Amino acid sequence: MPRFADPRFEPVEWRDGTLRILDQTLLPAGVLYLEAGGYEDVADAIRRLAVRGAPLIGITAAYGLALAARRGQSLPQAADHLAATRPTAVNLRWALDRTLAAADPEAEAIRIHEEQRQADRRMGEHGAALIEPGSTVLTHCNTGCLATGGIGSALGVLKTAHAHGKKVRVLVDETRPLLQGSRLTAWELRQCGIPHEIIADAAAAGLIARGHVQAVLVGADRIAANGDTANKVGTYGLALAAHAHGVPFYVIAPVSTVDTYTPHGDDIVIEERSPDEVLSFAGTRAAPEASGARNPAFDVTPAHLITAIVTERGVLRPPFGDAIVSITSTAVAP
Amino acid sequence: MPRFADPRFEPVEWRDGTLRILDQTLLPAGVLYLEAGGYEDVADAIRRLAVRGAPLIGITAAYGLALAARRGQSLPQAADHLAATRPTAVNLRWALDRTLAAADPEAEAIRIHEEQRQADRRMGEHGAALIEPGSTVLTHCNTGCLATGGIGSALGVLKTAHAHGKKVRVLVDETRPLLQGSRLTAWELRQCGIPHEIIADAAAAGLIARGHVQAVLVGADRIAANGDTANKVGTYGLALAAHAHGVPFYVIAPVSTVDTYTPHGDDIVIEERSPDEVLSFAGTRAAPEASGARNPAFDVTPAHLITAIVTERGVLRPPFGDAIVSITSTAVAP
Repeated sequence: MPRFADPRFEPVEWRDGTLRILDQTLLPAGVLYLEAGGYEDVADAIRRLAVRGAPLIGITAAYGLALAARRGQSLPQAADHLAATRPTAVNLRWALDRTLAAADPEAEAIRIHEEQRQADRRMGEHGAALIEPGSTVLTHCNTGCLATGGIGSALGVLKTAHAHGKKVRVLVDETRPLLQGSRLTAWELRQCGIPHEIIADAAAAGLIARGHVQAVLVGADRIAANGDTANKVGTYGLALAAHAHGVPFYVIAPVSTVDTYTPHGDDIVIEERSPDEVLSFAGTRAAPEASGARNPAFDVTPAHLITAIVTERGVLRPPFGDAIVSITSTAVAP
Repeated sequence: MPRFADPRFEPVEWRDGTLRILDQTLLPAGVLYLEAGGYEDVADAIRRLAVRGAPLIGITAAYGLALAARRGQSLPQAADHLAATRPTAVNLRWALDRTLAAADPEAEAIRIHEEQRQADRRMGEHGAALIEPGSTVLTHCNTGCLATGGIGSALGVLKTAHAHGKKVRVLVDETRPLLQGSRLTAWELRQCGIPHEIIADAAAAGLIARGHVQAVLVGADRIAANGDTANKVGTYGLALAAHAHGVPFYVIAPVSTVDTYTPHGDDIVIEERSPDEVLSFAGTRAAPEASGARNPAFDVTPAHLITAIVTERGVLRPPFGDAIVSITSTAVAP
């Protein structure tokens, strides 16, 4: 794929039948766009996390099908290839199925992208109402424009609260192994002028215990029918710490992240990524050459540790099973 | 301080009135010894973590006083300078006070070092009895020879269990920000032939939840009179996860780590280190230039989450307050 520098920061951009993808692996040091020539390029970009974040993966995969349609390729085959890239985020399969079923894949991909932007704005408003003025909020991974294509999910809530003058401060988990927190979230918060400090992931529990955190906000890669939530590895530990100290723990995710076919968190497939991501840091090998690693990319937070799930259709409260049935089964405007 | 390569791996070595210190910041890539010319060099090495681990800090500081004694310098002044390097580990003050009170500081430093070697062997035997054959044990930071000068505390237990044929496997938390797990613990486990895998710190809770861990073993930097334990940041989160899933959580530490003058964990001073440790690794900046960080080096695990505290004088069980009184107030052979 050709690469070129660009001063704009849209994470994916559809322009006259070509798809440009911001290579997030190079941020914050480098801002480079990839130009995807076909759906295989799109799949490569998703697999190696040049583009990541559950909603944005779905949008990008939908554009991948649009590329295949333009080239007269088999759409079911392209969809299978794209779906195989990441097993945990359900938005990927959801967006592919929706695009496959549409008469015009290109128009459908553009529609999914635009709907996500609107969903982000709604989640932002619903979530910002939960944030106390002057709060310090802890967040994990990246859940901003780089994860959704809109203003973001959890980070969209913080941007909205900031815009409403709530004077939030953010503690950003660096999010090993790939540092989406220190590389991407800090970068987005800088651009928005939101005060923040980065912490090692392992420092979160102690800071929560010492009263430094008033709320924890995270995104989601898949929400089971009972509310159990798969998200970036480390989320579960944050939920345990928040619960131990009575700090509210909010999941912010669009309805497309809910998987009503998965009854329970134990049924969610957890992607295991390459040990190399753990064994090196920013390209420098940190561990002895002969040592190996385990690298689960996600973990599952059980519903009983979640204070509320914020969607574009409103704020869900426990019991989540009932709330999820009501928002996914009724025909509600998106 | 002059540096030279050496094939041996004693972390500190007293030779005819000179002190050689293995520079742990360069491991595993480089093995270099510093030669400390005076107590100021020793303090520098402790402050920048060239030498670290609560028991080894105490031993090294005692040798620092021996250097000051050889040079006819004021010992109380040298002790204050050495004590100011790290506020959390109580072994530092303990070893300095003991050396100050001794008629022959040099002989006392050598005795403290040798007693730690013996204490490690006893902790190893007491702790190994708690490990089930075939267990996978999760550990945090480095608690081996690089932390104590003997076989180690928590890692000494694993080495002893391995030597007894218990076929333990180890999950090693990488331990951000300074990666003592992936750099130092993995390196020691390799040398001992103990099978291990490195994980991101944030992956521990999910692996515990999925049943991959049969025990968690950690060291300690200070144990309050009620059993609350300060240790490397991240320890508290591990204790929460272990407790949530009924996995035993063991603290392994010599009696010199117990601070009977600190009634409660809330009274323990938590060292805040430089933000730069979080913002970069091996000279590579990971975060945007303008973003800051918080970097607490320790956290406190409350006694109620600790299954047992393993010392050289035996295994303490709750209520720890009573057990600590009995091992610290009676005259027991070390």
